[in-house]
Amino acid sequence: MRYSLLAGGKRIRPVLALATAEALGHGQDEVMPLAGAIELIHTYSLIHDDLPAMDDDELRRGKPTCHVVYGEDVAILAGDGLFAEAIKLVLDEQAGEPERVLRALRHLVDAISVSGMVGGQYADVKETVAFDENGLRHLHALKTGRLIGAAIECPLALFGAGEAATMGLRRFAAELGVLFQIVDDILDVTGDEAALGKPQGSDERHGKRTYVSVFGLDRARELAQQSHAGARAALAEAGGQTATLEQITDYILTRDT
Amino acid sequence: MRYSLLAGGKRIRPVLALATAEALGHGQDEVMPLAGAIELIHTYSLIHDDLPAMDDDELRRGKPTCHVVYGEDVAILAGDGLFAEAIKLVLDEQAGEPERVLRALRHLVDAISVSGMVGGQYADVKETVAFDENGLRHLHALKTGRLIGAAIECPLALFGAGEAATMGLRRFAAELGVLFQIVDDILDVTGDEAALGKPQGSDERHGKRTYVSVFGLDRARELAQQSHAGARAALAEAGGQTATLEQITDYILTRDT
Repeated sequence: MRYSLLAGGKRIRPVLALATAEALGHGQDEVMPLAGAIELIHTYSLIHDDLPAMDDDELRRGKPTCHVVYGEDVAILAGDGLFAEAIKLVLDEQAGEPERVLRALRHLVDAISVSGMVGGQYADVKETVAFDENGLRHLHALKTGRLIGAAIECPLALFGAGEAATMGLRRFAAELGVLFQIVDDILDVTGDEAALGKPQGSDERHGKRTYVSVFGLDRARELAQQSHAGARAALAEAGGQTATLEQITDYILTRDT
Repeated sequence: MRYSLLAGGKRIRPVLALATAEALGHGQDEVMPLAGAIELIHTYSLIHDDLPAMDDDELRRGKPTCHVVYGEDVAILAGDGLFAEAIKLVLDEQAGEPERVLRALRHLVDAISVSGMVGGQYADVKETVAFDENGLRHLHALKTGRLIGAAIECPLALFGAGEAATMGLRRFAAELGVLFQIVDDILDVTGDEAALGKPQGSDERHGKRTYVSVFGLDRARELAQQSHAGARAALAEAGGQTATLEQITDYILTRDT
């Protein structure tokens, strides 16, 4: 669990949760357990995705994957354990009205349920969605979009944000999830292996549908610009202290890892 | 998920939760979502335990195991999905004071965390505990005892039970968990394959330490009788409407599947 959790990574999801707290006029520490739980869950999902029966990836964040180092049995349990510890972290450490903590936790768990991340993984593995633009968007909305969305929904629920901020930040979350995925797909083709920490071109080798394979590189870059503009517009609409969220949005467009 | 969940099974854990509600003077329906969640979680743990990288079992409840029917990738996701849906079930459907629902959920998640079920599985897989009586008790307390305990702890937390009932039912839960495991180990040696729904003698083939392998069959039967007596005594001490819990205790001693 520690090996995979502390292997590095961009920590985009927890940082988004902290920056959303800030946007809503709250301290980052007020949402820290939820932010940490989101990263534990993200790591659990990576460990299980990398398993031989799933994507069979041997390198992640520049290091051998969990099952390569510790064996498949321990990797399965490490994922299961991180999942449980994530929920425990929220239940044990997250301050706030019990009803609001419950509501935030509901957003988090829903994002990784059958109607979220696990459902997206299933659709990916069994190829149950069409290999076109709609299928691609739907798949990524479930696989990565919902957990990125939870990083924003959790603070919204915890702090009981007003309607304008809620609507704006939800739209921001949706645009940001798409932006993140498009850039991920572009980097898989154009990125530097050492910086990425995983082999370049792995999507293509796995026969994965990506924004690049469906639209081509040039159009994918245009779509990334559009999503970036959409995310920034949504932030402006949301109002509040959104400087950090703006920086994150720009970073996600221009990142090279 | 449905295939494994609806394959049958004794439903001992959810029934224990319902009977504990009854013992505390509440309706069984008042704890139904938590009881259901416990069974979803039990099923998730069985699916992951049966995987080729873990126990590599091909038969469960008289049917081919999840990965045999649907493949390892889907089986991993089915377990992950049942885990998430279990938590969602509590968050969406469990009535009660938010603070008490949170407390009940904490008992449930703690029971399956690294300090509970997942930790027990890890200790079993990596053989980190001694192959003697203490090691055996510790291992089973984590692997099966904690989730059986949660079936009793969750209603206690939800209904805010008094100290006498809490102490008595906790002692009952501990004795019942041991009783359940001893009988399980005995049935693995003496049971009827058709009734068990899995191959007889599988513990021995897997080189598992059991009450029978450590103590022999006769001594294991004595220990079962002792735990049964201890569980019944704890129920008497707890007070309340314990008729159904008494019946479950007798059933667990005399069951043949």
